[in-house]
Amino acid sequence: MKTKQVLLGHGSGGELSHDLIKNLFVKYFDNPILRKQTDSALLELKAENLAYTTDSYVVDPIFFPGGNIGKIAIAGTVNDLAVSGAKPLYLSVGFIIEEGMLISELEEIVKTMAEEANKAGVMIVTGDTKVVNRGKADKVFINTSGIGVLEKDQIDISTGENVKVGDKIIVNGSIADHGVTIISERNELNLRADVKSDCACLNHLIQKVKDSGSQIKFMRDATRGGLATVLTELVDEREYGLEIDELNLVVNENVRGMCELLGFDPLYVANEGKVLMVVAAEDADKVLEIMHADELGEKAAIIGEIVDEHHGKGWVTTQIGGKRIIDMLAGEQLPRIC
Amino acid sequence: MKTKQVLLGHGSGGELSHDLIKNLFVKYFDNPILRKQTDSALLELKAENLAYTTDSYVVDPIFFPGGNIGKIAIAGTVNDLAVSGAKPLYLSVGFIIEEGMLISELEEIVKTMAEEANKAGVMIVTGDTKVVNRGKADKVFINTSGIGVLEKDQIDISTGENVKVGDKIIVNGSIADHGVTIISERNELNLRADVKSDCACLNHLIQKVKDSGSQIKFMRDATRGGLATVLTELVDEREYGLEIDELNLVVNENVRGMCELLGFDPLYVANEGKVLMVVAAEDADKVLEIMHADELGEKAAIIGEIVDEHHGKGWVTTQIGGKRIIDMLAGEQLPRIC
Repeated sequence: MKTKQVLLGHGSGGELSHDLIKNLFVKYFDNPILRKQTDSALLELKAENLAYTTDSYVVDPIFFPGGNIGKIAIAGTVNDLAVSGAKPLYLSVGFIIEEGMLISELEEIVKTMAEEANKAGVMIVTGDTKVVNRGKADKVFINTSGIGVLEKDQIDISTGENVKVGDKIIVNGSIADHGVTIISERNELNLRADVKSDCACLNHLIQKVKDSGSQIKFMRDATRGGLATVLTELVDEREYGLEIDELNLVVNENVRGMCELLGFDPLYVANEGKVLMVVAAEDADKVLEIMHADELGEKAAIIGEIVDEHHGKGWVTTQIGGKRIIDMLAGEQLPRIC
Repeated sequence: MKTKQVLLGHGSGGELSHDLIKNLFVKYFDNPILRKQTDSALLELKAENLAYTTDSYVVDPIFFPGGNIGKIAIAGTVNDLAVSGAKPLYLSVGFIIEEGMLISELEEIVKTMAEEANKAGVMIVTGDTKVVNRGKADKVFINTSGIGVLEKDQIDISTGENVKVGDKIIVNGSIADHGVTIISERNELNLRADVKSDCACLNHLIQKVKDSGSQIKFMRDATRGGLATVLTELVDEREYGLEIDELNLVVNENVRGMCELLGFDPLYVANEGKVLMVVAAEDADKVLEIMHADELGEKAAIIGEIVDEHHGKGWVTTQIGGKRIIDMLAGEQLPRIC
């Protein structure tokens, strides 16, 4: 790279842009499709059913224990595809960079993205870079979109359509790690707990469950709005309710401490590596076993079940034995969490 | 909408987010796929060859004569797909909004996007919204990605691979309108020329040329970096050169005046509705005729041709009869032009 900082010219489409593309993006993301550097990537695909998703990432700070904005940008979009039942294949990446950002920081982010895409088995095939004047963005924002392929016989698992009373609700581990890590890293707080984001690509873990023959009836990753948001979406306008037990939720000790200190309910705090699955009761133990054998599911647990009561509502049994309704998050809890 | 301004909570994934999605995005972008509001859109596609692209839009100001950031966000991505030879079908949209943006402004942008997508015949099938604190972004940034389908026998028209000596270079009208409009709108300049962005979706115009049986050998839209950038990319590392004549370039009078005043070369100024096509000499008149019959190609012209001289380089004959080489844009000319 010819400079140490990102300049406005890096977004102009001219020589500096070409330098950035060649010496950073193509260098790390390299694959035969991207290498052509055409405006549109040309993909050969045999599938008839595709999943397609997009997310922008604006997390602050951009580096944090357990990851950085680049890791989230890959994992978040890979996970959105995987929870729809698709095999993630191709990603696009759009950078909006604030003038003056250190090239070394950008390079670290790009390197992480390449590693994460590689681990997940997806290719970054097309991209774009814009640079805005100092003070008009905050270091870097990243958009990723993604394409995955679906099996022809894939049932709808994005809504609660195929869920039945008696089905079990499983989560692959501890909750609230990501949100608590971000808030603990923010400079305005002088609290630094020993916590780490759970940010990870879940597609291989999900594939293992699918390969076992267990039918997943509903699946969603619990990000912004936390597990509570997924639980309310699962029952919304359905002819069933759900019940979970707080005692079954895994919350790491330091995360629980921070939540108590800050007045957050872990159920509402963002995750970046947690999936909620609904499976038939007879499949639940097998799914747990598969998850426990994977490093991303070691602490997987059945947190509750689908019930034929309070249709359209989720209830949680609290640690002290009381019961309360699970509402959707109102207003902002933690802005710029992802 | 429950508020007049965008709040941080609109990006939290909770109740306010749902309000924004339902009463703005789904309201205007409505289609059967988006309506499901699942994390990934599920697409049924019979094609085996897809084109896939992404672009982020950060244009400043967000409203300008001839369009707004939303119109560019649709047209830019539709055009990237169309110039690769694909029929654009599906778009994703990611908004990054600065806290405090007026909902009325956002609504106007969303409405324009819906109209433009409708005109182009594409569906917005998946989206995402993030809100960042005041002063951490500039009103709104929009990312769109897009998927198009390619005919099986589509030749490579994204590179100069199929271009031959003697082929003609055609542009569908006046150049530099978009860039000059943006610079003229910026508040720091007290110049306001009567100019208008050329921002438009070119997919239908391109389809007409394809339907006529004329073989397009190379095609690219001339955006950031202007026509000059496309011309240098067309010849780069090729066994041919190109020559264009400045007298054949269409530049609107007010645009030319502004360029002279500001010291810009129109060849390097951004367009948002201009495509450069290379076609065989025997097809050139037919292509021109088709373009002239379309409102987006009324001023189409043959600007030059592919030559067996100065391989890898483009030359322009200037209005006073001199010749100069066409270089790639170095550094920034107009930041945040799209």
